Amino acid sequence: MYHVKVFVTYKKSILDPQGETIKTALQQLNYTNVTKVVVGKYFELELSATDTPVEQQIENMCTELLTNVNMESYRYEIEQLPAKNMEE
Amino acid sequence: MYHVKVFVTYKKSILDPQGETIKTALQQLNYTNVTKVVVGKYFELELSATDTPVEQQIENMCTELLTNVNMESYRYEIEQLPAKNMEE
Repeated sequence: MYHVKVFVTYKKSILDPQGETIKTALQQLNYTNVTKVVVGKYFELELSATDTPVEQQIENMCTELLTNVNMESYRYEIEQLPAKNMEE
Repeated sequence: MYHVKVFVTYKKSILDPQGETIKTALQQLNYTNVTKVVVGKYFELELSATDTPVEQQIENMCTELLTNVNMESYRYEIEQLPAKNMEE
């Protein structure tokens, strides 16, 4: 079993109006020391091992479904979970 | 300067229809080994140091603006950036 975290944000060249709005809102709430806000999506996946390496599966999932590769960039962290006790 | 990553997901007791939909979509794309998908929001903030500890500031921002504390839970990672060279 693998536990995978995927982070998706806009590419640097793409405007992020949601982030700008949140930055303005935070500054109006007196957090004037906030200089930058980026908003993105966050996915947590759990998947079992297959013949395909998990990195390759995640790359494919990201490009096929989870992100818009024209506008968004992604990164991910893969954590292998301890195998479940089969005797249970 | 601090670089802060905030992760917001629904509480476990709250239905996550978006995650369920993505799980179904992935399974239809032949990723049948995906057993769970959770969708959330992801924020990256940059802020400068103030008299208030940064942890306390982030806690306040999360409860005041970034999350709906009734339905969502949050966690964050704070990274201190190296101070900029003042001679530059």
